[in-house]
Amino acid sequence: MFGIAAVDELVSLLRRLPGIGPRSAQRISFELLVRKRELMPLLAAALLRANGEIRHCQRCNNLADADLCAICRSDRRDHGVLCVVESPADVLAIEATGIYNGDYFVLMGHLSPLDGIGPEALHLERFAERIALADLREVILATNPTVEGEATAHFLGGMMRREGVAVSRIARGVPVGGELEYVDRGTLGRALTGRRALED
Amino acid sequence: MFGIAAVDELVSLLRRLPGIGPRSAQRISFELLVRKRELMPLLAAALLRANGEIRHCQRCNNLADADLCAICRSDRRDHGVLCVVESPADVLAIEATGIYNGDYFVLMGHLSPLDGIGPEALHLERFAERIALADLREVILATNPTVEGEATAHFLGGMMRREGVAVSRIARGVPVGGELEYVDRGTLGRALTGRRALED
Repeated sequence: MFGIAAVDELVSLLRRLPGIGPRSAQRISFELLVRKRELMPLLAAALLRANGEIRHCQRCNNLADADLCAICRSDRRDHGVLCVVESPADVLAIEATGIYNGDYFVLMGHLSPLDGIGPEALHLERFAERIALADLREVILATNPTVEGEATAHFLGGMMRREGVAVSRIARGVPVGGELEYVDRGTLGRALTGRRALED
Repeated sequence: MFGIAAVDELVSLLRRLPGIGPRSAQRISFELLVRKRELMPLLAAALLRANGEIRHCQRCNNLADADLCAICRSDRRDHGVLCVVESPADVLAIEATGIYNGDYFVLMGHLSPLDGIGPEALHLERFAERIALADLREVILATNPTVEGEATAHFLGGMMRREGVAVSRIARGVPVGGELEYVDRGTLGRALTGRRALED
């Protein structure tokens, strides 16, 4: 508590952002007020603009500034393939690989019964609509390889079984560039059971 | 780059805050847009409010919401003693000790010739005004025990020599609760040369 209402309010709001603790919130507030005043109205305007403009793509649920996102609108993507991920950051990560050219569905979370996040908390009615669209041939479940991500993939796989499309899960195994010695048991076990025939 | 102007703008502004890298800026933006929409107008309003209300105390240069800060206005503080610090966070740290009841002067930085921060970049004309006020008996130089902080204390000590008030520097030595074995050479050397007679 700095003891000035306007400063304390700023600090307490910044603390509610992910990854920002009390020290960081104070440091950011002082830096803004002492050295980066010009940033304050710019940041305020950017927050209001993003809050006003950004919504969810009606087809893939990703963040978008129109009813449909750029990927869902594109005529260069293969709309018959769908990759299901947990977050917009995962879309960026997969796009960065440069080897995927299908559509996405962004769950904006994962099932986590312990935290009270059941199927109804995810946008699964939108997901059901998406997988009901004609021409869908393949669905890749690319939720995180965590307990929650696996549970989510399992649940979504169950929804798909009724649909008659090829459903796969991204491969789990040793990370490229890693050394076996330092890979955890669970990952190494997955790499062994998921072994693939040598390609010619 | 997420590819939506409103999102990319928010991310790039957040990156300019101290301690926030590209990943954090992206994570904060997505968290706000996906799960914490209600925070966006609140944070925007707090930024605009703080930018509008907060100025520098005309006496001590600390952040304030009036011409004088609460400490400079207080009739419970000893205005004859002045503690010179680098930042508002240092004021909070010293207040938290509960053993200081004088005034402060907040430099909002330190001398750093290598970075082009000379005496004119600090608010030294305000400092000169402050130390010229009647009834000043003692000045404690509490800049950081870093190269820049020491240089700043040395420079300010030179300004004070003309003023005829008691000038001291906070003690440098082994931190309370630390173990000698793990204290760096410079600190341990300071603790030895700065040794004090045992009190009865």
